[in-house]
Amino acid sequence: MFIRDCSQGRVFLARLDSGAEIVSQITDLARDMEIETAFISAIGALTRADLGYYDQTDREYHVTAVDGPVEIAACSGNISLLEGLPFVHAHAVLADGRGRSWAGHLVRGTIFAAELYLQELYGLPLNRVPDPITGLKLWGEERRAERVE
Amino acid sequence: MFIRDCSQGRVFLARLDSGAEIVSQITDLARDMEIETAFISAIGALTRADLGYYDQTDREYHVTAVDGPVEIAACSGNISLLEGLPFVHAHAVLADGRGRSWAGHLVRGTIFAAELYLQELYGLPLNRVPDPITGLKLWGEERRAERVE
Amino acid sequence: MFIRDCSQGRVFLARLDSGAEIVSQITDLARDMEIETAFISAIGALTRADLGYYDQTDREYHVTAVDGPVEIAACSGNISLLEGLPFVHAHAVLADGRGRSWAGHLVRGTIFAAELYLQELYGLPLNRVPDPITGLKLWGEERRAERVE
Repeated sequence: MFIRDCSQGRVFLARLDSGAEIVSQITDLARDMEIETAFISAIGALTRADLGYYDQTDREYHVTAVDGPVEIAACSGNISLLEGLPFVHAHAVLADGRGRSWAGHLVRGTIFAAELYLQELYGLPLNRVPDPITGLKLWGEERRAERVE
Repeated sequence: MFIRDCSQGRVFLARLDSGAEIVSQITDLARDMEIETAFISAIGALTRADLGYYDQTDREYHVTAVDGPVEIAACSGNISLLEGLPFVHAHAVLADGRGRSWAGHLVRGTIFAAELYLQELYGLPLNRVPDPITGLKLWGEERRAERVE
Repeated sequence: MFIRDCSQGRVFLARLDSGAEIVSQITDLARDMEIETAFISAIGALTRADLGYYDQTDREYHVTAVDGPVEIAACSGNISLLEGLPFVHAHAVLADGRGRSWAGHLVRGTIFAAELYLQELYGLPLNRVPDPITGLKLWGEERRAERVE
């Protein structure tokens, strides 16, 4: 297990913008506020979304378009660094008005209304690095290029 | 984006009461403890529930009755002020014993058993005000009546 | 309502181990780090899982096997003490690549990849004790054996 001991940083509650893309808007917030690490949770509604499912055998994301207005029944995840920049990783459960629901990796979604809770965390930078077992970019130590002298 | 910088207040873990209505009970807790702003998350089970879906075109909530015992597979949201009083806004994912699930805005639910995590937040009061774009009451600056002298 | 006022302890972000059982691994983490009380939230993917549904009439858990790779679309819960040892109580929403989802009490699951947020809480020990109304072990005061002198 790769475990990082953090301390609490700032806390934000934000009303995200109608019409904006939710993952980008949270990423922009992180960049503007110089947030490197955080826990996030959101509720609200989207006008549409794309959800990802990672095929554990083929090692690639399959994306499902959710074309139509949906409630964000649950959305949680984190912010950490990918190649030195804040990267939002969030999963979500979406539901429409006819009893259908969709769940998975939140690739993107257009905001109708959304309320974000963001708990910033301080500590050593938490980097995503390629993981050979899963094919994903997971938290770990950055490998430095070997120096040849 | 409307963003509010908060600091951490008190933290509560609560076992809610069997037979009580969950949204009212969290609201009562907020009022009794003088909590104005919070992040909340809960798990447990309900004996029944009503879930809402906000029709983004018609601008009204449609409510679905979930008549029968369900697990609270996920429930998260926040507390802020509506007309000066603590207001609970929570979304949930519910599941019964036959593989069916429901997701949306938690209008009300009768508790079988429920465990609440509540992170109070301090800062300027966070008010819900009418939002002309969505027809919802969202976080924003309270407009004061114009003074005519 | 049984309510416990806590203060914030340590915060951990952890990348859990591929191939490990998720509930056991969080329990082991709690034991190793001497964590007695916490709020937890996780996202990721499992190679398989067992989800529980508590029958409120029969007062027993029915377990559904989710045989196949799934995203952890939502997972939240808490850590408290059961018979003096840290006990993980988590609920989850899982989704496969064909639009199916499952939701309920997370009995066990084999990790493909998982990212855990753990907010430790300090305060009086929070114990699970048998609850006669629900048949569950819920937070409450531990009853001591009556002394007969």
